[in-house]
Formats: sequence, structure tokens, C-alpha cells
Amino acid sequence: MSGGAREIARRIATGERTAAAEVDATLARIRAHDGEINSFVALTEARARRQAQAVDAQRAAGAALPPLAGVPFAVKNLFDVAGLATLAGGKVNESAAPAAADAPLVRRLEAAGAVLVGTLNMDEHAYGFTTENTHYGVTRNPHDPARIAGGSSGGSAAAVAAGLVPLTLGSDTNGSIRVPASLCGIFGLKPTYGRLPRNGSFPFVYSLDHLGPFAANAADLALAYDLMQGPEPADAACAQRACEPAAAALDDALTGARVGVLGGYFDAYAGAQARRSVAAAADILDARATVELPGAEQARAAAFIITAAEGGALHRQRLVTHYDAYEPYSRDRLLAGALVPAAWVQQAQRVRRRFLEQALALFSQFDLLIAPATPVAAPLIGTEVLHLNGQDLPARASLGMLTQPISCIGLPVAVAPLWQGRGDTAHLPLGVQLIAAPWREDLCLAAARALERAGLAHPRQP
Amino acid sequence: MSGGAREIARRIATGERTAAAEVDATLARIRAHDGEINSFVALTEARARRQAQAVDAQRAAGAALPPLAGVPFAVKNLFDVAGLATLAGGKVNESAAPAAADAPLVRRLEAAGAVLVGTLNMDEHAYGFTTENTHYGVTRNPHDPARIAGGSSGGSAAAVAAGLVPLTLGSDTNGSIRVPASLCGIFGLKPTYGRLPRNGSFPFVYSLDHLGPFAANAADLALAYDLMQGPEPADAACAQRACEPAAAALDDALTGARVGVLGGYFDAYAGAQARRSVAAAADILDARATVELPGAEQARAAAFIITAAEGGALHRQRLVTHYDAYEPYSRDRLLAGALVPAAWVQQAQRVRRRFLEQALALFSQFDLLIAPATPVAAPLIGTEVLHLNGQDLPARASLGMLTQPISCIGLPVAVAPLWQGRGDTAHLPLGVQLIAAPWREDLCLAAARALERAGLAHPRQP
Repeated sequence: MSGGAREIARRIATGERTAAAEVDATLARIRAHDGEINSFVALTEARARRQAQAVDAQRAAGAALPPLAGVPFAVKNLFDVAGLATLAGGKVNESAAPAAADAPLVRRLEAAGAVLVGTLNMDEHAYGFTTENTHYGVTRNPHDPARIAGGSSGGSAAAVAAGLVPLTLGSDTNGSIRVPASLCGIFGLKPTYGRLPRNGSFPFVYSLDHLGPFAANAADLALAYDLMQGPEPADAACAQRACEPAAAALDDALTGARVGVLGGYFDAYAGAQARRSVAAAADILDARATVELPGAEQARAAAFIITAAEGGALHRQRLVTHYDAYEPYSRDRLLAGALVPAAWVQQAQRVRRRFLEQALALFSQFDLLIAPATPVAAPLIGTEVLHLNGQDLPARASLGMLTQPISCIGLPVAVAPLWQGRGDTAHLPLGVQLIAAPWREDLCLAAARALERAGLAHPRQP
Repeated sequence: MSGGAREIARRIATGERTAAAEVDATLARIRAHDGEINSFVALTEARARRQAQAVDAQRAAGAALPPLAGVPFAVKNLFDVAGLATLAGGKVNESAAPAAADAPLVRRLEAAGAVLVGTLNMDEHAYGFTTENTHYGVTRNPHDPARIAGGSSGGSAAAVAAGLVPLTLGSDTNGSIRVPASLCGIFGLKPTYGRLPRNGSFPFVYSLDHLGPFAANAADLALAYDLMQGPEPADAACAQRACEPAAAALDDALTGARVGVLGGYFDAYAGAQARRSVAAAADILDARATVELPGAEQARAAAFIITAAEGGALHRQRLVTHYDAYEPYSRDRLLAGALVPAAWVQQAQRVRRRFLEQALALFSQFDLLIAPATPVAAPLIGTEVLHLNGQDLPARASLGMLTQPISCIGLPVAVAPLWQGRGDTAHLPLGVQLIAAPWREDLCLAAARALERAGLAHPRQP
């Protein structure tokens, strides 16, 4: 186990361990254990050693170290890393020119002293919830290698859950941070749409794409998030917003907050373990009421249409020239998406605006809303059908049922890992979504911290 | 002839004439002469008499009169007028509930004392350049009733050109103010996208729709425009911009301006009279160079796609339920538009952004650009084919060839009427577009005024 990010930084700052030794141990751990879970696609060993040496030199020179000095991290392989082709989980980009520069979020974490050690597996082009990647292999769940890690940021979640690195980055368009955080039993944050800059990452759906961190505890998550905040003119969606740090208020922000549980749709598509996760979290957070957020089902349909259309438009040209190189699990969806009428998208955008208004109205009564992050705990690899409350649902699409309406309107969400499984899934986590009004990541993170402090939410050693 | 707006206001302010008498004369003139040109669809007689009485009472009480006190005006029938169904040139809306309130632009002109006397004919749902309206009849050109007035704001242009009212409002999505202003020989302004609020008007293409005024002289045009300016929270595209009045600087704003003539595409699709109009305007405005604006042809294609898709989306449901009530000239285009793939629209939006960048680069070298407003002078009603520089082009769509690329990127344009026709079209006007960078309506209007002052641009009595 790697230890948490702040704990590693503390040991390096005090001289208990050098950054170089931390990198050595991390690379050795990945080489020894990642074969089983397949979370990494590439290691950036030379770069990691250079950055570690720089940290150690800085310390030797007596300079103050930045907050993540020497902390290893890794990123979903849709982030630009200078010198590597940005694969985004695909074969299509293998022959692309290597990235000329790092993504802003990579730069910002390195500026805070963190050490990039590699890039992580994902569903091809982020279009999936399972990380069953035909080209690079499935990423397995560290708690049960017969099961999926979730996706599309499956490598990012599994690497933290397996204790390989304390901090990773992923992306979330319809649930791709929240689903694998839930299935792997770690903390994840999908910030407000527009909060963190997305330039330097391979896009999927411009109007739905979010980037965010995974960590093994709420304070690491909040710290990483704070260190990545800040406007970035190259992402028009993010250019306007100033930083609103969350880590400092982690133990206070939730004081007096009005907490509600999302019922209706969010209960109808929750299995037994998901309901137990929500009930346990609601108890700790003193939730006062179960409330409906009308329009969730339509919002999910809208997110599907917008995703297919924008994703299809993005890949249309390459689907013509490189059809055979595309992932079978998603290429026909992309192809169909390229044919979606603009009139459907316009109607979907209307549904989305109306649903946002409904949500904002709810936030006049509540500061925080709780919902399950996934309907079920991690399914077995290759599962086609979910049996859920008497319905049979397509497994791959339905893992995002509960996340998709929330990201459709850009709300910030933290996922905290709970362990309410019984019987066959007693060994498996299933997280809750802690949802706040736009720009209130502080509340989401404080709620995650409160569940952690109560002993309810925590990773488990696989 | 009605006399100009400011002249009417002056006569009423000095007591030479009452507002009530002005309304009487205007309604009598419309009843006597509009049968021939068919510019009005409805008269708002009772409302006009009430407003005129209020103006006369104000004057009798010794109160200062607002700038347009007693000036008659009329609006394209896509503007909401309380108590009337907003037809937008169609039969489909005939059974709609009457508008509950006036459009903001109607309210603002009435607040300035102007007197609404009626609503004006247009192409159905603004999808056309000819005002050959199957339901309400063709609007005829006051200078030759065998010819079209242009469209889609044909009634608005013809009513001013025929001297029925001194001031009208229209809308311009791809050229619907500029084409009829050119063909009817009056002044028209399409402001910058987002300058004037559009709520309370029947939409066509949200991302391309503009509203604006027509008048018989440049100063009336500038005054009406100034009186309609101002943010309006209900139109998100317009909510942000403060007023930047143009009328006060009408004789000065152009001093020292660098003027260019648009060549390339804008010359290739200009007929002989259009070229003479541009040459005459360039001479008066001291244009220094002929310049290319690369990408105009692609921008026109982009505007076509965006128009079809957004228009199709808007009408899709009603096309299903009321197909037979739709205008034969446009219903199949709307139907096809409802099937346009979102991927095409996304590509069109990309083309549009690139073309805007090209145009902004050109505005670092020039303050004002001149182009013809239409390829040819007013065609005969029913014309199917334009013979233009050796090419045969579909007449109805091609009248907007030269306006469409400019509105596609939201630039402000004034049209000034020139009379450079020879032979068969010696009696027909053909206007020029006076184009500036975003938010510089002052330059467009000052250029129109300069052409007017030089005796080049002016309406002619039909």
C-alpha cells in the first residue's frame, strides 16, 4: 500500500524517505502487482526519476517543498503527457504525433511537486462504464479480479484502490469518475462543469466532459482538487471562474447544511446494496427528507443523445478511415451518433435546461443531496444483463444510470466508498454520490470527509 | 409620402399637426395605396388612435414630448403585439392564443412616443428572400409591382418605400432586412448579433436571428436604433451589452476610417448593377483597397445548414401535425432540416468560428467594408432562375448569397439605397452593405449617412 498523498509528502519533507526512493518503491509495486489488475498502460519512469531528483535536490538545498513534493500520481491516458501519443484508450491514435506539452492539470500537479509515474487504462475514447478495453485488456477490480473496475476511468480508480499510487486523474462525461470510484471503493470528485481546465486532454463530449481526481481519503482528494483549480483561457468553459479552495474547510463546510436523499428515479434504479449505502450515509449526514428531482429519466435520455451526437461528430472522419481500428463495444454507437438529427440534440438541450432549473429549485431547500453512485456493486467481467428490482437492463449502459442525470447538468459530486455488501458481494464496495449546487465542491468534499470521519467511508486493502 | 420620422415628430411637437391627424392620414394612405403592394397584414387602428390621443394630451398638458412622439410605425408580423396572434407569415399560428404582451422593441418605440399602426407581410416563418407568401399574397415592389419586394421582411421594406409609414421593424437571419432594403431602395440596419433583444418575436434560428429597423433616411434609422438599444435579461444573447448610441455621431464616426471593398466571392456573385453600386459607394467613401474575406462560400454553406437544422427543429412537431398548413416554398426545406445530422451542424459551427476569426483579422486593417446587398435588382415575381455572370442560380435562395456570410458571424451591417440601374432595371434600386466589426453600428450608420449626404443614397418616390 502506498500510503496517502499527504502522508507521503510529509515523509519526504521530513527526510524519512527520499522522493527517489518513493519512485523506486512505486515502480516496483506497479511492476509486481499491476499484472493482475492491468491499470497501467505506460510508465513514465525516466520522467518520474528526473522529477524525484529535482524534489530531493530542492530539499537538500533547504528550500521549502510544495504540498505534493515527491507524491507519485498517474493519469488516464486521455491526458496529454509530453512525448507520448494521447491514446484515449484507442488504437486509432497510436500513430498520432506525441503530445508536445503536458495537459494543464498534469502541469499543475507537477508544479505542486507531484511525480507522474504513468498513464492508465480506460474504455476506448471514454465511451463505456466498464474498462473492458479490447486493445489494452480489461482492467480488473482489485477487490475481485473476476469483476470489472468500472469505467471509463477504470485504470485510475483501480490503481488507487490497489494501493499502487495515492492519486490519479480521470474524466467524467456521464459517470466515468463516479462509477469506477464506486466499484473500486475509493474517493473521487467530479467537479462542477467548467471548474477544471480540459485543454490538453482528448475530448469526448465538449458540453459534458469533466476532469477530476481520485484519492484514498477525502483530504487528499480536496488537496489535489485545490492544487488543480484556476482559470485557463484555452478552455472557454473554464476561463471565467476564480479558485474557491475546499481543503481548508473540509471539517467545517457542512456545518448546518440541509441534507436530503434523492428518491424516485434514484431509488427505483438502486439495488439492495445501493439502498443500504444511501441509508447509511443519510444516517451519518443527518438527512432530513427524501426528495424527488423530477425529470431525471428525461435528463438521462438527453445526455445519451448529446453524447452520441457530439462523440459521433468528433469521430466521424476517423470512423470512415479507420473503422476496423475502433473498439467493437462503442464504434456502432459512435457511427449511429454521427447520424443523430440536430433537432434531437436541440430538444435534448432544452430538456437539460429544464432539468437544471428543477435541480436549482431543489437547492433552495437543500445544500447536499445523496444518491447511490451505481445501481449495483462491480459486475463480473463480460456481464451483459443487470437484474435490478425485477427488471433486466443492459449492463454496460446501465452502470451510469444514476450518475448520468447529474453530470448532464454539471453539478459537482464527490463519491465516497461504502461497504454495505452482503452475501456474494460482501467483499465489494458501492459508493454514494454527494451532490451539491454548482460551484459548491466544498460541500461535496466536506460530506465525504464526514462519512470518512464517522468510519463509514474508507478504502479497504484488497 | 409620409415624410421622415423626425420630420413628423417635429411637426407634432411644434403643433403644426396633431398625432391624431397623423394617424388618420397614415391609415387613409395605407387603405388607399396598400392594395397594390400588399405590405400590411393587419391594422391596429384602435390602438394607434389611443396612443395618438395620449401624445396629443401630453402636448396639450405642456409636457415635453419623447423623440418619436406621434410617429407612425409598423412591424413584421413575427413581433408580438398584445391581442394579436403572432403569425410569422404563417397559417399554422392563426389559431394560437393572441400575444399577451408586446415585444420589447415595440414597447421601446412606443415608450419613445411612436404609434403602432399595423403588422406587415413576410415570407412564412421568415424562411425566404422574396415575400411570395402563399397564404397572405405576395408583397409587390413599390417601384415595379410586377417585381418582388424581397424578403423575408418584404412588407417592412415595401411599406417604407411606398411612403406608407416612415419607420418599420423587421428581422434578419440570413439577409431578411438587407435583401428587401436593397430591392425596395430604403435604409435598413441589421445590428450586431445580440445587440437588440429578440424575446417577444417568433424565432427562426436562435443563433442567427437579428431584429432591426428600416427607415427612409440614415438619421431616422440611427435614432430608431438608439431608442431600441439596451440589455434585456429575457434574451440571453442580448443580456450583457450596454447601450452605445450611434445617432449623435452620425456625421463624425467615419472620420479617418479605413474603408475597403470586399472582392473575391462578393464580386463573383455581383451582377453589373451590383458592381456599379459598390463602385459608386467606394468612390464616395474613399475606399483604398479591394480585399478578400476568405471562407465566405463555406460560411454561406454553414449558415444554410445551421438555418435548416435549427429551423427544422423548431417546426418539427408542427410539421407532423399541420403539414398541409405550411408554405409550399419552405416546408420541405424545414422537413429536410429536421433530419440534418448534428455532426453537420457541429462542423458548420466550426466553419463559422474560423470565418469570424478571418473577418476580425481583416478589421485590424479596415474599419468599414463595402459589398453589394443583393446580386441583382428586384426580379419579377415568380422568377425561378437568376442568370448571373454566366451562371444559372436558383433565384429564391441566391438573393441572399451576399448577405448570408455576413450575418453568419453576426457583424453589424447598414444597407443604403443606390440607383445605378440601366436599361430594364433603370427604375430599380440595389443597395450596398456597409459592414463593420462587431458592436460598431456607429460606423455602418455613419457610412450610410455619408452616402446620403453625397446625394448617392436616398429613397425615390415610387
